[in-house]
Amino acid sequence: MKIVCFSYQGVRRVGRISDDGSHVLPFDLAAGVSERGALPLLERLAAGEPLPAGQAPVPLDQVTLEAPLPRPRRNIFCVGKNYHEHAREFAKSGFDNSVKGGDDIPEYPIIFSKVPEAVVGPGVAIRIPAGISDSIDYEAELAVVIGKGGRGITAEKALEHVLGYTIVNDVTARDWQQRHKQWHLGKSFDTFCPMGPCIATADELDGSDLRVRCWVNGELRQDSRSSALIFSIPTLIETISAGITLYPGDIIATGTPVGVGIGFQPPKFLKEGDRVRIEIEGIGVLENPVVKE
Amino acid sequence: MKIVCFSYQGVRRVGRISDDGSHVLPFDLAAGVSERGALPLLERLAAGEPLPAGQAPVPLDQVTLEAPLPRPRRNIFCVGKNYHEHAREFAKSGFDNSVKGGDDIPEYPIIFSKVPEAVVGPGVAIRIPAGISDSIDYEAELAVVIGKGGRGITAEKALEHVLGYTIVNDVTARDWQQRHKQWHLGKSFDTFCPMGPCIATADELDGSDLRVRCWVNGELRQDSRSSALIFSIPTLIETISAGITLYPGDIIATGTPVGVGIGFQPPKFLKEGDRVRIEIEGIGVLENPVVKE
Repeated sequence: MKIVCFSYQGVRRVGRISDDGSHVLPFDLAAGVSERGALPLLERLAAGEPLPAGQAPVPLDQVTLEAPLPRPRRNIFCVGKNYHEHAREFAKSGFDNSVKGGDDIPEYPIIFSKVPEAVVGPGVAIRIPAGISDSIDYEAELAVVIGKGGRGITAEKALEHVLGYTIVNDVTARDWQQRHKQWHLGKSFDTFCPMGPCIATADELDGSDLRVRCWVNGELRQDSRSSALIFSIPTLIETISAGITLYPGDIIATGTPVGVGIGFQPPKFLKEGDRVRIEIEGIGVLENPVVKE
Repeated sequence: MKIVCFSYQGVRRVGRISDDGSHVLPFDLAAGVSERGALPLLERLAAGEPLPAGQAPVPLDQVTLEAPLPRPRRNIFCVGKNYHEHAREFAKSGFDNSVKGGDDIPEYPIIFSKVPEAVVGPGVAIRIPAGISDSIDYEAELAVVIGKGGRGITAEKALEHVLGYTIVNDVTARDWQQRHKQWHLGKSFDTFCPMGPCIATADELDGSDLRVRCWVNGELRQDSRSSALIFSIPTLIETISAGITLYPGDIIATGTPVGVGIGFQPPKFLKEGDRVRIEIEGIGVLENPVVKE
């Protein structure tokens, strides 16, 4: 099932994509419940409640897809340097303040966060904040959406806590990431977390080996598979939940493959008019334009 | 005014402390509104609405004070290494992965976050997670509570956006902080954010020069003033809001002075049965016991 949040006739709704991909089937949810997107639905599913009844299908081309979780319940957990080749390109770029000597491949997962209000949906512009940073970079990432919460989840049981998968663009101001040492600020600027187009549920999609690709203006920049993650999805869930209780709707962006802008010489930063297109097998396409404020 | 969140006869309420300090004066808020503590009140005040009517006073000794913001709207912004002597003790401790050579005093604010669910109130136990970490440390901090939100707030205008001040204990698992490079995990374990006892409003309290003290089992460990911050409160607000819109109820924990556990040789980590007591001038006392799970 592909769960979507969408706007139809000016109202935010939650539904699923029809099997043939042509329609959305809205869920019968009380007015107001859908304001937080799929979050209340995920909480119900995690509590073992059945899927709400469906309503009359709406043609997909008559709705505007939004981020499936337009306002996550708390900051998004993000993983840094979780693909070997990306860890090396980042270490070489001069923007990586976590490197000392030869330790460009992390020994332990590197976890930081993005504020929930940075989330924007498919098609919404990534805004380059004029006068604040010109070093804006893209990062295509497979994101895990937690269903059943918990603490001390073992890697063996971790996939029981995954409700599904979505796409996140972990947009980054590289200069801020570098000079503030901790990455939180440079990762959290307004509009720096495009998300979508859906949550593909884990009962139908195995996240362990999905092709992840990213184009900028049609040029293929990133092309890898989630099987290449240094720290696997079960390991990430075990690590994060060791001391921190996870809740339904928590999001873990698993890290980006090689091919980001700072991997090039000179760096290829995003600029006004660019279009970033991310495709992950089994989930779909997340495309966002870039504007300068 | 000292805004408090408290439990009385099993119900969570929001109110203020009476001028003589003996009573709480509950605000007349609809049932359910107080579930998020003072957050809805702060949102109303930030929108220019008047203070809600008061209800009959309740003796302070008949209520249980809770964290004024028991579940913040998003992760708490935290500042690392924001007092000179603490920056040096941390750099020397071997637990600081942000140091390369002599740069123990940061050139730019270091900002990371703690998850909102780590918040606990006065008197609630800090839990040492058995088998996960034994390197648990305290950090007494003055925390800023944002009133009116905004982006691109200048240092000159920053104090107009401060609604008040509270105390945060930025409890930290030092081994996790060190080995995961980004500090988010080691700062966010369940119960790792004691907060309280009130929000002292900025119309009555100037946060720029307050005495901050911390005792462990009666031994004075930290004793400094907020005037010693490397990056002042206006600078922090300007820096964070440059790219990130701030909202009413956002919390900025401004950093801890010298005297944390890892400043000692050997380190004095928290252990079962300890009591951490933090006092900040004009706000009050935040005291929490420590238990081992």
